[in-house]
Amino acid sequence: MQVHSESFEIRTTGKATYEVTDNVARIVHKSAIKTGTATVFVQHTSASLVIFENADHSARVDLEAFFERLVPEDTDYFVHTSEGADDSTSHIRMVLTRSSEVIPIADGRLQLGTWQGIYLFEHRRSPHRRRLIVSVIGE
Amino acid sequence: MQVHSESFEIRTTGKATYEVTDNVARIVHKSAIKTGTATVFVQHTSASLVIFENADHSARVDLEAFFERLVPEDTDYFVHTSEGADDSTSHIRMVLTRSSEVIPIADGRLQLGTWQGIYLFEHRRSPHRRRLIVSVIGE
Amino acid sequence: MQVHSESFEIRTTGKATYEVTDNVARIVHKSAIKTGTATVFVQHTSASLVIFENADHSARVDLEAFFERLVPEDTDYFVHTSEGADDSTSHIRMVLTRSSEVIPIADGRLQLGTWQGIYLFEHRRSPHRRRLIVSVIGE
Repeated sequence: MQVHSESFEIRTTGKATYEVTDNVARIVHKSAIKTGTATVFVQHTSASLVIFENADHSARVDLEAFFERLVPEDTDYFVHTSEGADDSTSHIRMVLTRSSEVIPIADGRLQLGTWQGIYLFEHRRSPHRRRLIVSVIGE
Repeated sequence: MQVHSESFEIRTTGKATYEVTDNVARIVHKSAIKTGTATVFVQHTSASLVIFENADHSARVDLEAFFERLVPEDTDYFVHTSEGADDSTSHIRMVLTRSSEVIPIADGRLQLGTWQGIYLFEHRRSPHRRRLIVSVIGE
Repeated sequence: MQVHSESFEIRTTGKATYEVTDNVARIVHKSAIKTGTATVFVQHTSASLVIFENADHSARVDLEAFFERLVPEDTDYFVHTSEGADDSTSHIRMVLTRSSEVIPIADGRLQLGTWQGIYLFEHRRSPHRRRLIVSVIGE
């Protein structure tokens, strides 16, 4: 049994989903761990993780449109707006999705389903650098 | 320290919650791991996981009714509808719940609270086979 | 590789977010594990976990206000109300947030980002004792 931990950075250019499946897969490969789990963790409170449909981009268009309506920027009762209209909305959208995701590894590979990709969900309008940590545990 | 990974399949017959606690507990028992964690992972993008109240079925009725209203099938701005009205809704309901869940193990047993059960949340109308992976790590 | 598991209790006094970062950090420190992961798990179905902005209390005010509106107590179609108007709402708010959260450990410390804190999100009006388990795995 061993543990291998590594981080990587993604540059975002506004609200959208950014695929990071290959970044995570590369760290799993490098770890040489054949059976175990990979924990993906995002170190931010205005960006989050989702495992999502990776085949048809229109699914992500709907996802992003849904969150714009579920947690709208013009919500009149928000008080935490010092950093702009996307301040509280970004934190709440993060809470409704995930900070950590754990994916099984078998035969040295992430056991994602055929249509599953791992995405960073950016909730801020302006460009950001986002740091993700991958911790691989197994043998 | 050791790792034990196994998968199982659930046949679903439409939108609903399907309890899988016993399926997960059996794999934990078989692993013979006494202290550690069990990661449950669902390999799909239109079904998800929830840990939910297991005593009174009416709680699950309300859960399912709530999601029907939060992400309605007749949402007019959805564009990802090639597989039907439950296409984008199923992906978004999955994002709002979970793909992975990690449960501590002590004394060889899942440390669920008294009222906690593990459920597969099916978001599709038609019957499906759903594959879940359980990765047990510990000693 | 080793595993260290411990639980702690939080007394809540109504609907709110309660920070537990220090409780988790103390268990990680006690485990003496330098590299690995800490799984935090809440053993209840009417309280949940969130990783959230820890700097400005107003962000949590907005979070709590948002959930009051997203899953309102006066929802007329709820049938699971035997324990009061906060019965079904508490379970659904739990499903929309998290039961488990996994945080990487490096150099013997939780790898939370600068603005991330771990919070118990209480969804019940009345005082409760809530039990959380922390499972640390690594070397």
